Amino acid sequence: MRQAGRYLPGYRAIRSQMDFRTLCKTPELAAKVSIQPVDILGVDAAVIFSDILVLLEAMGLAVDFETGDGPRIQKPIRSLNDIKTLHPPDVGKNLCYTGDAIRLTVKALSDRNIPVIGFAGAPFTLACYAIDGKTSRDFNKTKRFMYENPGAFVQLLHRLADGIADHLQTQIEAGAAAVQLFDTWGGILSRETYRAFALPALQRVIQPLKVLRSPIILYLNGSAPHLETMAETGADVLSVDWRLPLSQVRQRVGKKVVLQGNLDPCALYAPPAAIARATRAMLMDHPGKGLIANLGHGMLPDIPVAHVQAFVKAVKAF
Amino acid sequence: MRQAGRYLPGYRAIRSQMDFRTLCKTPELAAKVSIQPVDILGVDAAVIFSDILVLLEAMGLAVDFETGDGPRIQKPIRSLNDIKTLHPPDVGKNLCYTGDAIRLTVKALSDRNIPVIGFAGAPFTLACYAIDGKTSRDFNKTKRFMYENPGAFVQLLHRLADGIADHLQTQIEAGAAAVQLFDTWGGILSRETYRAFALPALQRVIQPLKVLRSPIILYLNGSAPHLETMAETGADVLSVDWRLPLSQVRQRVGKKVVLQGNLDPCALYAPPAAIARATRAMLMDHPGKGLIANLGHGMLPDIPVAHVQAFVKAVKAF
Repeated sequence: MRQAGRYLPGYRAIRSQMDFRTLCKTPELAAKVSIQPVDILGVDAAVIFSDILVLLEAMGLAVDFETGDGPRIQKPIRSLNDIKTLHPPDVGKNLCYTGDAIRLTVKALSDRNIPVIGFAGAPFTLACYAIDGKTSRDFNKTKRFMYENPGAFVQLLHRLADGIADHLQTQIEAGAAAVQLFDTWGGILSRETYRAFALPALQRVIQPLKVLRSPIILYLNGSAPHLETMAETGADVLSVDWRLPLSQVRQRVGKKVVLQGNLDPCALYAPPAAIARATRAMLMDHPGKGLIANLGHGMLPDIPVAHVQAFVKAVKAF
Repeated sequence: MRQAGRYLPGYRAIRSQMDFRTLCKTPELAAKVSIQPVDILGVDAAVIFSDILVLLEAMGLAVDFETGDGPRIQKPIRSLNDIKTLHPPDVGKNLCYTGDAIRLTVKALSDRNIPVIGFAGAPFTLACYAIDGKTSRDFNKTKRFMYENPGAFVQLLHRLADGIADHLQTQIEAGAAAVQLFDTWGGILSRETYRAFALPALQRVIQPLKVLRSPIILYLNGSAPHLETMAETGADVLSVDWRLPLSQVRQRVGKKVVLQGNLDPCALYAPPAAIARATRAMLMDHPGKGLIANLGHGMLPDIPVAHVQAFVKAVKAF
């Protein structure tokens, strides 16, 4: 998961010397913290250090990263006119640092055969931030906008989808071996509204990227109502939350996709022996190949490093 | 849903004159605001005005209702010792106002043949408040406690279950035609942990109440992973969120239970004509009898009254 490095002491030491945006936009440092989890935890891939909101900023929405309770959009979207002010990101210019960080990370890891994974927010999830302006439990402002102005909402999703596709293409061309799309808040939609709004926007992102032949991973928190829909997006890997056993997920999505997941991040609060048991149980529940062992959501900041190591060790031992 | 009255101007007028606790604990006034939605919206039942946290207070956890951002437990549970300080509620004394309010409401509605519905929080959801101390998106403190101290967590659930059963029995004996159990946060659990922790505690509440022959409604937000488990609790009615179409819910829970739900509360932001269309689509999607038309979660405070009326009207017309 993308937050992998943020709870490591080495990451915190660097962050204590600069703000979040500076770290994101300084490729040498972003590369450095991207590599920390590989060194310390022994994971099989590095996820590039970045944030899904840098794209909104590059499309014209100013973001406050240092509020103390998560980033905030300074002027959230309120109307079709606001949507029209969003411009395509200039990936070679105001987003060039992501590609640069990926190039540096790929280079630093090349002799170890460790792939680097890029990412972006999915259209619906970025729309949630663009409209609600900050994280929320229910993103009711976004849903209100969707129900009141479905046509304008679709336009927003399309604009975001095109920016996301640009950003991911840059990351793949910079050397990302795979890219993840985080539809973190897709779980607040009904099956029907997810299919009507989020699915076509995801397809608009994913289809043009297919020719680049870099696997695309789609994560959705609250995936249970949406598994079949996720399988229709064209994503190569479906990354699911912890709520359903993998055997049931596999049954519903078929054999064509790889799965990623799905230990409950909170399960890492348990003692290491219990973590190892839970990890083995998860792995044994998935029939055959086609699983990337992972958590079902982002790492929590107060998990002891030794507990994460117990998880990685249990996966490798299996 | 229980919040039915809280967004009505008549409710707000009364609340502006007193704090939440006073209103909860003054049976005449609680009865008055319980009847408002029946008069103004034309709904078929009155849900008694109360709060799921009054039971925690009656069991020994002081609650702050007037914080501005939702109630807070003054000293949240941190250990097995804290759990041992919880005592059974004295339903005839420190919870008597719920029964009194129900008696008054039943009496006031008796000539209109309108039933009164009582309610309580489900054990897991009350445990979330008892441990996290306030509302949260993920209730990570609660899940941490569950993973670190599963034995103590079960003890907490059992103690809460017994208190809940007492409270619901009082409400049924006072004249509640049905009672609802709100497992509002059950959706943060995995299927496996819901079955291991929440299910036995729910059965412990529901089984002893069966002899009273008052239907028991179980609500769970994020019900998609847990539908089959909900059907094993013994509840007569399963109240589900908006995420899955009712036809799919029915397929998974069988024909023995009644369903309740499941329009997305945010769908009431749409114009009245769209609300009527969405309501008809929902009703047509449920095959045959055995559905209580409702929302899939609580009413949002800023929904125009005319929009709620459009929903009720569409249901009655159908």
